[in-house]
Amino acid sequence: MARYKLIIEYDGTPFCGWQRQADRMSVQQALEEAIARFSGEVVVTQAAGRTDAGVHALGQVAHFDLGKDWDPFRIREALNYHLRPHPVVVIACAAVGPEFEARFSAKARHYEYRILNRRAPAAIERNQVWHVAKPLDVDRMHIAAQLILGQHDFSTFRSAECQANSPIRTLDAFDVTGDGEVISVTASARSFLHHQVRSMVGSLKLVGEGKWSPADFRAALDAADRTRCGPMAPASGLYLTGVDY
Amino acid sequence: MARYKLIIEYDGTPFCGWQRQADRMSVQQALEEAIARFSGEVVVTQAAGRTDAGVHALGQVAHFDLGKDWDPFRIREALNYHLRPHPVVVIACAAVGPEFEARFSAKARHYEYRILNRRAPAAIERNQVWHVAKPLDVDRMHIAAQLILGQHDFSTFRSAECQANSPIRTLDAFDVTGDGEVISVTASARSFLHHQVRSMVGSLKLVGEGKWSPADFRAALDAADRTRCGPMAPASGLYLTGVDY
Repeated sequence: MARYKLIIEYDGTPFCGWQRQADRMSVQQALEEAIARFSGEVVVTQAAGRTDAGVHALGQVAHFDLGKDWDPFRIREALNYHLRPHPVVVIACAAVGPEFEARFSAKARHYEYRILNRRAPAAIERNQVWHVAKPLDVDRMHIAAQLILGQHDFSTFRSAECQANSPIRTLDAFDVTGDGEVISVTASARSFLHHQVRSMVGSLKLVGEGKWSPADFRAALDAADRTRCGPMAPASGLYLTGVDY
Repeated sequence: MARYKLIIEYDGTPFCGWQRQADRMSVQQALEEAIARFSGEVVVTQAAGRTDAGVHALGQVAHFDLGKDWDPFRIREALNYHLRPHPVVVIACAAVGPEFEARFSAKARHYEYRILNRRAPAAIERNQVWHVAKPLDVDRMHIAAQLILGQHDFSTFRSAECQANSPIRTLDAFDVTGDGEVISVTASARSFLHHQVRSMVGSLKLVGEGKWSPADFRAALDAADRTRCGPMAPASGLYLTGVDY
């Protein structure tokens, strides 16, 4: 038996998210069907991050086991061939030891959230950004973001459906940068709560448009109260960009 | 009567191109229907570049006339509202004089061609780039590109269906740059022949993979013979990025 680690890129638009559901196509199902087609084996894949419907990945990581040994290069090529109907691509495949777990071995997860900040909506990237027509103050958003770095109770920025045992997380990096019309928010942590990045970005938008001060943003965190969160940012702007082990 | 100039962004994937056709949706038809919906007037729009099926625009320019005077800001907002079913967006609208012609007043047109140069296909940008799996030598491509700057007979890089009177064009800029996995080829000229950019890029790819030398690329131009052109690059990687007046 051999274990393989995949780095995967996908457009989340047509999927119900990473995780299998009975009635809608998931990234997991697309990938497991492609594995079955080349190997003849039915496997269950595990991913570092169970991205929601519409959320994209540039560097999702997953692992799976096969009874037979394969050349990792051939696995990547075969998967990309069989995945072609779907906007899912295997960037890299490597053989790993049986101790490797895509989800539990992860030391850091990195997300990027992209905002298109201009009057006109997005045409080419309409499912790949959050369009915000009102001008946002990037510097003010970045200042606010720095105020919530470190270990906190992130209940304010946590979905009601979050299944994590604890709302305590440690935010290692949270940066807001502007490049023309595109604002990029990057966030890194060992792990995130459900909807945490989209909740933080939705609240940061209130800072960027002047409705909240940076201190208001920090106060919302300190309240540890979901009702203090700003309207959540949509899935379309979110990318899982990478996972460290 | 008033004339308006639009700057337009679109994803060319679902369209038969800029120009109206009887049986398929064009960017022109989507735009003219949106104009009719807000103004009640049936107009014919003219564009700087009649992009082909699948070709994108970040800065297409078009003009049209309305019997009634409108605030250009309101035109842009109304068009973007009515264009929403389509991946077409009006970036800017301005009132211009009756002498302005989007096509004939243009002093320079700028195109960009994007190649995703990596083993794995594109997932998120699958309709927005040309995927080339074999590694390309960007510097060698750029050297070759410099050899065809200036005024030449571009018959080698011209579609058999091109309706221009003359195959003589002046290529003002033609640059190849690499940024990670993405290779960008930019081209500027007063005007281009039909399929000229895609034909030049398709031939440059042969230089990048070592099948042609830069001198071979120049010799193909000098032959002024369509059969000397490399396989044409696909529409998906091409963007009309801007037009100067």
